[in-house]
Amino acid sequence: MTVTDELLANAAQYAATFDKGTLPLPPAKHVAVLACMDARLNPYGLLGLSEGDAHVIRNAGGVVTADELRSLAISQRLLGTTEIILIHHTDCGMLTFTDDGFKTAIENEVGIRPPWAAEAFTDLDADVRQSLRRILEDPFIPVKSSVRGFVYEVESGKLREVH
Amino acid sequence: MTVTDELLANAAQYAATFDKGTLPLPPAKHVAVLACMDARLNPYGLLGLSEGDAHVIRNAGGVVTADELRSLAISQRLLGTTEIILIHHTDCGMLTFTDDGFKTAIENEVGIRPPWAAEAFTDLDADVRQSLRRILEDPFIPVKSSVRGFVYEVESGKLREVH
Repeated sequence: MTVTDELLANAAQYAATFDKGTLPLPPAKHVAVLACMDARLNPYGLLGLSEGDAHVIRNAGGVVTADELRSLAISQRLLGTTEIILIHHTDCGMLTFTDDGFKTAIENEVGIRPPWAAEAFTDLDADVRQSLRRILEDPFIPVKSSVRGFVYEVESGKLREVH
Repeated sequence: MTVTDELLANAAQYAATFDKGTLPLPPAKHVAVLACMDARLNPYGLLGLSEGDAHVIRNAGGVVTADELRSLAISQRLLGTTEIILIHHTDCGMLTFTDDGFKTAIENEVGIRPPWAAEAFTDLDADVRQSLRRILEDPFIPVKSSVRGFVYEVESGKLREVH
């Protein structure tokens, strides 16, 4: 039995008491959250989100690449969100390696160098600002009146805004 | 006051009762979930996940582009996950448009055509299989013994495996 099988048993429980079958497609709170995939960062618990409230976009680092710009453009243009909340966090795995080192290790093992940038960073607040700028400079995201960036502190549970 | 401000008040509440400050960086359940950003799909509630359990990667559609392959490679190679759960869902926004139509509309408004594929799809199960194949064929993701794909039914709360 895999962990996936265990989680599927949880999913059966979820369905057994499910009462949210009529929620509309557009997010009720008109918010898109972009956050790191880190296991300790739970956007639902942290922000008090429930089913139907917000788009949640996540990746390694909570960084902004072409795919996050695609998702944000779809979120705003087709589904009416108007605010963006960006969340990085302390003790992030992206602080523990370099793009060159990671990609060279993969190349040495696999024989092919990954075509993507790994998006590692060394300064957490600076990378929040870098990510915010990538959003603010993107020509395909129409609404930028509330694009705010934060660091979630995994040690304290606090969310700190980056200015 | 923006919705973001409201959610920040929730975050302050979360921190006030926070007791998970010693969780380790690697996910306890060694699972990475890749799911659509849809507001109605809550991976924590659905799969019974808590802080520290799993990586959660999300985008418009739950599709697999270079950035998801990057995140999965980092998840497995640096943080020890070994199982992948892919989740698309019924009533997905990605079923409501075409790449060409969406990109032409943007081009007509902005004057620039987005450089990314929008990743719209017409057949939900087929796109789950397409996404699974993109993972299974990727040379940089080392562990593929448990890569499974599902459709979450927003109407019923049920999770259905795609074979």
